[in-house]
Amino acid sequence: MKTFIYPGSFDPPTCGHADIARRAAALCDKLIVAVLGNVNKPGAMFTVSERVKMLEEVFRNTPNIEVKHFDGLLVDACHAWGATCIVRGVRGMDDMANEMQLAAINRRIGDVQTIFLPADETLMYVSSSVVRELAHYKSDVSSFVPKVVADAIDSKG
Amino acid sequence: MKTFIYPGSFDPPTCGHADIARRAAALCDKLIVAVLGNVNKPGAMFTVSERVKMLEEVFRNTPNIEVKHFDGLLVDACHAWGATCIVRGVRGMDDMANEMQLAAINRRIGDVQTIFLPADETLMYVSSSVVRELAHYKSDVSSFVPKVVADAIDSKG
Amino acid sequence: MKTFIYPGSFDPPTCGHADIARRAAALCDKLIVAVLGNVNKPGAMFTVSERVKMLEEVFRNTPNIEVKHFDGLLVDACHAWGATCIVRGVRGMDDMANEMQLAAINRRIGDVQTIFLPADETLMYVSSSVVRELAHYKSDVSSFVPKVVADAIDSKG
Amino acid sequence: MKTFIYPGSFDPPTCGHADIARRAAALCDKLIVAVLGNVNKPGAMFTVSERVKMLEEVFRNTPNIEVKHFDGLLVDACHAWGATCIVRGVRGMDDMANEMQLAAINRRIGDVQTIFLPADETLMYVSSSVVRELAHYKSDVSSFVPKVVADAIDSKG
Amino acid sequence: MKTFIYPGSFDPPTCGHADIARRAAALCDKLIVAVLGNVNKPGAMFTVSERVKMLEEVFRNTPNIEVKHFDGLLVDACHAWGATCIVRGVRGMDDMANEMQLAAINRRIGDVQTIFLPADETLMYVSSSVVRELAHYKSDVSSFVPKVVADAIDSKG
Amino acid sequence: MKTFIYPGSFDPPTCGHADIARRAAALCDKLIVAVLGNVNKPGAMFTVSERVKMLEEVFRNTPNIEVKHFDGLLVDACHAWGATCIVRGVRGMDDMANEMQLAAINRRIGDVQTIFLPADETLMYVSSSVVRELAHYKSDVSSFVPKVVADAIDSKG
Repeated sequence: MKTFIYPGSFDPPTCGHADIARRAAALCDKLIVAVLGNVNKPGAMFTVSERVKMLEEVFRNTPNIEVKHFDGLLVDACHAWGATCIVRGVRGMDDMANEMQLAAINRRIGDVQTIFLPADETLMYVSSSVVRELAHYKSDVSSFVPKVVADAIDSKG
Repeated sequence: MKTFIYPGSFDPPTCGHADIARRAAALCDKLIVAVLGNVNKPGAMFTVSERVKMLEEVFRNTPNIEVKHFDGLLVDACHAWGATCIVRGVRGMDDMANEMQLAAINRRIGDVQTIFLPADETLMYVSSSVVRELAHYKSDVSSFVPKVVADAIDSKG
Repeated sequence: MKTFIYPGSFDPPTCGHADIARRAAALCDKLIVAVLGNVNKPGAMFTVSERVKMLEEVFRNTPNIEVKHFDGLLVDACHAWGATCIVRGVRGMDDMANEMQLAAINRRIGDVQTIFLPADETLMYVSSSVVRELAHYKSDVSSFVPKVVADAIDSKG
Repeated sequence: MKTFIYPGSFDPPTCGHADIARRAAALCDKLIVAVLGNVNKPGAMFTVSERVKMLEEVFRNTPNIEVKHFDGLLVDACHAWGATCIVRGVRGMDDMANEMQLAAINRRIGDVQTIFLPADETLMYVSSSVVRELAHYKSDVSSFVPKVVADAIDSKG
Repeated sequence: MKTFIYPGSFDPPTCGHADIARRAAALCDKLIVAVLGNVNKPGAMFTVSERVKMLEEVFRNTPNIEVKHFDGLLVDACHAWGATCIVRGVRGMDDMANEMQLAAINRRIGDVQTIFLPADETLMYVSSSVVRELAHYKSDVSSFVPKVVADAIDSKG
Repeated sequence: MKTFIYPGSFDPPTCGHADIARRAAALCDKLIVAVLGNVNKPGAMFTVSERVKMLEEVFRNTPNIEVKHFDGLLVDACHAWGATCIVRGVRGMDDMANEMQLAAINRRIGDVQTIFLPADETLMYVSSSVVRELAHYKSDVSSFVPKVVADAIDSKG
């Protein structure tokens, strides 16, 4: 069984994240969507457990996606959960230099591969930080995030 | 069964190609290494059928790799062979802008995904064009290409 | 009156070109869409005069767009037609280094400015060369080019 | 009447900013130079109102430039002031990926266009952060900033 | 006598830093490895004087390398020490835009040149920040840093 | 004695080439400016021996610059002439990915280093191909090339 892992902060999850995860899930037997960190950073929009719950809701109908959180080195999570491949979405060239460095280090220290999935071109401008800024100014974000996330943002308002 | 496809010119196949193919094969049930084109361009080092034979030799011990050649649109080959995902090796940022465009077009016209695998950092400088130039000047290329390819280059000498 | 110029090969014109031109036309009083070259290169899909005719058809309802062709240095065309600003569409980072060099040289030798318009993200993967390749394999290009262009491609088939 | 907006932090304004603004002003009927933010961040060199005053002095002889400050979403400022196009200076490729994302989001949420102007090549190395660092070490910055800014930095010394 | 300077934070020094320094030392008569800053930032792994001592140990057998620390503008250090050329290692394209800007400013304000040395491809993924993160999670870093640095990290453990 | 080599096509030599060579010469004991190729490609503006003569004239007053031509692998020329370091000018990020690959291959096959010198920002837009195109249209190129080159272009006119 091939298990891939899709790690991220997901603060908040966006339609871009959901699209990458669903496409990655089609490439493997099981995809673990892994929320990074267990501390609640100052400035975070949602706690880690809130993010986990929202992601579980988003992927409720995608049976081979499991949502987890992890703290520590990503390769340790991979080993613990049997994941042999890390999935990263890329939106453009600026992402790649840093991503290639991380991929090399994870392969070297943990023998874990990394694959990059290109973001859907219609979602290329969507990011968690853009959503946080729009939400800060009470701008409508409902076309950028899954419904459960939009509702959670509204109820924070 | 998940079938991925790794297309390229492979003129000649390099250690970098072999590394990407073997790692991609570990991520799916079957990997098709697909040699692009059926015409023999002026300036080509090897004919398409020579390249296919060399690649078959290179992957003789990797049971889930199959070597084919194709002519025409890549998405048509994917549909004909049941491949749902295109594999591309990336060596650096310069590759990415063009690759993202091709990935978008292939998803749009053929509903086929693309994943990018980062080249091994120790093979990042190896390319078919570098090998062709070194071979042109009779420089030793045996550390950059699989043995069967080095032998074929020597016998051309 | 502010006249801008949008130069290119437009072989063939795409929906991306049409979108950039219409947005540029909204920023100035008159936009000249200028087809580059008067020779018919081997490998060209359409002659320069065919491209001019198609573009005229595409922009028939945009009154402040005029289609012309030019041969020679772009800055000479700008001076002849009273254009003070060159418009260039950019699809990603790979375009920019070369574009910045051309912008600098045109400002230095002709005192003509250049502005870059970002391609619409939903059209980012569309280019004339992709259309030419798809058309070569008789693949449907009707969603990538204006109707008049799609018809012209079909009638060539 | 075509109104463009040139937003930024301008802490402090540089010769590069002045050059971009003057060139942008030549492309439209009215250019609003908009100082971002109304809070005075720790680490800022000048208050927002000091920056506004310096910019007003810099553009005193450019009649179609108006200096304003804004807080909140840039598209809201555009709507309030009737600006249909955002102007951004670009110095190199590193700027572009993030700029393209912002341009896409502003077009999507506010129907506002963005144009990029290439920095003058002789000013390409000038930035507010470089000026702040040089000023911190009492290095002469008079060739990098307009005279009114150099005087204001000296009087802080 | 040609004196070059290789500045950096070196927190901690890595095998990549050691490789760049040794190769740079082969290109000049004397190389000054200059540790940036005299303050001990919160979050630093080692104090500046600890870094200087480790670097002295690393280069003990490279007679034309001298380790120093500096505070203030790099060009002032160059002038004080008679260095006419700054050495910078580059690992990929993301480094270059910012590096080109710094090189231009240092040439303009201090008449000091900058040369870029490409990182060894086998060390391209090694950086001080990666080492700090691995060390934070008690992961083995001994293949990424010189032995004296690995020992110092262990003894902090 | 430290000998560096600055290879290129130099068809024609530009002010940018002259600037890089003079700055490189200040970093070593002897700089060899090496004109690539001994064949006269169709489309070339000057023969290799014309380029060598022009470069000799350009550097007549720079005693530690020697002009040569070479054919074959660059590392073989380095070994033959005792050069331990290749000098390359870089104008922007687009140059770097390919340059890093060549630097790695030359270090691997010939144990020759490569250093990159940033182009002067005021010359960043000058290239041989731009000069060739301007000259083709009889545009004045005298501010982009050394006087001897401008004269040679004029006499071709």
